[in-house]
Formats: sequence, C-alpha cells, structure tokens
Amino acid sequence: MPSLDICFSPELLPLYDLRGRVAVVVDILRATSSIVTALAQGVTHMVPFSELEPCREMASQGYLTAAERDGRQAENVDLGNSPFGYLDGVVPVRGRSVAITTTNGTRALHLSAAAEHVVLGAFLNLGAVVDFVRKQQQDVVVVCAGWKGKFCLEDTLFGGALAHRLAQEFDVTSSDATLAALDLWQAAQPDVAAYLLKSAHVRRLNSLESHKDMEFCVREDVYSLVPVFRDGRIVVA
Amino acid sequence: MPSLDICFSPELLPLYDLRGRVAVVVDILRATSSIVTALAQGVTHMVPFSELEPCREMASQGYLTAAERDGRQAENVDLGNSPFGYLDGVVPVRGRSVAITTTNGTRALHLSAAAEHVVLGAFLNLGAVVDFVRKQQQDVVVVCAGWKGKFCLEDTLFGGALAHRLAQEFDVTSSDATLAALDLWQAAQPDVAAYLLKSAHVRRLNSLESHKDMEFCVREDVYSLVPVFRDGRIVVA
Repeated sequence: MPSLDICFSPELLPLYDLRGRVAVVVDILRATSSIVTALAQGVTHMVPFSELEPCREMASQGYLTAAERDGRQAENVDLGNSPFGYLDGVVPVRGRSVAITTTNGTRALHLSAAAEHVVLGAFLNLGAVVDFVRKQQQDVVVVCAGWKGKFCLEDTLFGGALAHRLAQEFDVTSSDATLAALDLWQAAQPDVAAYLLKSAHVRRLNSLESHKDMEFCVREDVYSLVPVFRDGRIVVA
Repeated sequence: MPSLDICFSPELLPLYDLRGRVAVVVDILRATSSIVTALAQGVTHMVPFSELEPCREMASQGYLTAAERDGRQAENVDLGNSPFGYLDGVVPVRGRSVAITTTNGTRALHLSAAAEHVVLGAFLNLGAVVDFVRKQQQDVVVVCAGWKGKFCLEDTLFGGALAHRLAQEFDVTSSDATLAALDLWQAAQPDVAAYLLKSAHVRRLNSLESHKDMEFCVREDVYSLVPVFRDGRIVVA
C-alpha cells in the first residue's frame, strides 16, 4: 500500500526523498487555488518564478504577469494572487499564458522538482487530485508551501482532507504529520472557513483584503483538473 | 503580552529569532523526560553531546554515560535513554554527573543556545516550566526535537499543553503552529497515552521496548524542577 506523508514546510523538504513519488504542492492561500482557477478559465499554461523581476519581464513575450508580495498585488503586473483575478473579467485570460510569482508557492514548486510527478493541489480541485494519485499508485508527499517557511494551518488542512479521502487505499498512519493533519481536518469540521478565521495567516490576509478569497479557496471540488509542473511550466495534466 | 510560538523541528530553527526569548526544548520520548527524572533523582549536572564517542570518553572524567541511538541503548555506556534507568537503582545516580547523547534531543539543545534562557520541558515537569516562563515574562519558543528532523506528535502535544496552561497570560493565537498544537492537545484528551499509541514514533519505540516508558513520560507534574542549559551544562534552575 503506498504511503501518504505531509511535509509542513519547504524548509523540511531535504528530509524527504521525492524520487519516484508524487509531490502534491499546496498553497491554499492563494497560489495553488489561483492557478487551478486560472487553468479552469482557459489559461493555456503558467510559468512560475521565484523572483519578481524575471516574472515581470515575461510581459515582453506576450505573457500576462501575476505577482504577490506579502499578500498584496505587486506593482506593474496584470494580476495579483487572488483567484478572482481570473474570474472577474477585468483582465481577459482565456487563451493567454501567465507568468506568476508568489511569496511561498513558487518556491515550494521549484523545490519539489525531484518528484516523479509534481501536481498542484487545492480544495478547489481536491477530488481531481484524489483521482490522479489513486491512478499513479505511488507514494505521495504533500508539500505545504507554508508561510515564509513556517507551518500554516490551511495547507495542513488540505493534507488532512486528502489523507481522509485516501485513507482506505494509502497508508496514512506511518507519519505523525499525516496523523496530525487528519485530526486537524476533523477539528475543522463542519465549517472549515470558520475554523480558518482563527489562523494567523488568514487574519493577515484579512487585514489586507477580505474573507472573499478565503471562503472561495476552501470550497471543494469546484474544478476537475489537475495542474502539473513539468519542464518549468504548469499545464493541465 | 508575550507570545508563545512552537517550532516543530530543529531544522526550522533558523526561521526563529531566539534572542531575548525563552527556548523550551522538548523531547518527550525520551531525552527531556529522562533528564528531568535524572536531576530529580539527585544527578548533579548533565553534559549533552551530539556525538557518541566524546560522550563515552567522559567516563574517564568520572561521568556516568548515557546514550541512545535509534531508540536503543548504545554499547559500552552506563545508561540508555529510558527515565527508568535513573529510577530502578541498577546504576546508582545520586551525586553523580552524567554525559548524555540522544538522537534528537541533544541536537535541539545545542541549536537553541542563542536563546536568553534554554530550559528543558517534559510533561513530568510541565507545571514547573509554566511557573518559570510566567516569571520571565519573555516570548517563548517551544523547540520540538522531533524525529530525525521531522514533526512528531508527542513533542507537539507538550507544546499544546504548555500553551493551554498559559493561554490567559501569553499570546497563543498569533502562530498557526501554536493553534494547531492546542487543537491536537484537545484531540488527545482525555487519554494522552492512548492517543499517542497511534503515533509513528511511539509504535517505533513500542517495537523496541514497552509502553512503560511512554506511559511514564506523559504523566504531568511529577517533578517540580526546571533544567536549564547554560555554559554547556544542564543544571537545575
């Protein structure tokens, strides 16, 4: 039976051997939620950058640019990190490619590149991720983007939700991180959004924008696609 | 109001500024539990080592030697890492000094040395740690030894228990790690030992020895002393 482990921070990734495994990178607030939304709205592919300037320069190659620093949209880019940027029609996105950089998510993606498959997970596409890893039958490591390298609740809850759905087919008891995530997922029921209102990160986001993003980002199974990161690009699997 | 944060792994310590703070190093199974027990049984002081050989060599200076690797007592030392080694009378410990090395705990201690105070926490001396940090009125970082750098449940539960007792006087809501530990502490009620039986680390320990150590190590407020680590030695505060 393949195992499901959870890495609470990209800083801990050196302790995990990703080779031959599926890495599910998650940054619920808001990188992976926004990327899933973008691809569902017809974005052709996305290129993640760790740094702001090379991301901005992709505009000259016809890319839309999306950038967030400390929870705010960066200057001189087309989009921030809110999924609503891809939904509200202010910037038409269908058929476009997007260069993206975020505080935590991009870093987690790049650090996960050693895995056999690097997929992007969010509550929005939870069911699709479940189907994907079920089909691979390989060990899974959920890579939480965290907040500046530290543990964060919302990414952990995603790990718990994934483990909960796969508990019959995957070993979810050999890792204390997975056991903890399962219990936290339980503690967050029945209202995950209400539970997350107490999280430090949500309160930080809250002070900058609104609850709107968070409430959208905890909705499950809105989109049925799985983004994969391969050859430097994020595309639909 | 001072804050209480929790660092789930020594590998994440570079993200925490320990200067001017109290670091509470915890390795419930079993380093800090054994050290608290040792000092309560009249051991004068202890010297922690990261490596086995320099620890063994302290025998020539009159030290008892205590060493564990992968959950077992190392060869050619007086004691392992079980608290019962200091209780069963096989090796008389009163008035003796002890050189100690363990897989995870010693490393966490040395990495915490930048803190204003480095104290050792266990369920066995939980109330004494509460009193100590209450008196200091400085920010607290609980440093979990973890298991080979990874998250472990029992150290996290200690963090949750400490936060629970200090929730009125310390800010325990600004860190997602502390919020998670509080919820896991809640989930572990009313029987922490039963809860920990599912943990990966406990099952590992279980296969080598017995439940005896674990059941002893989750007992609260058995000893009223606080070990501090200063100038390379662990002594009673």
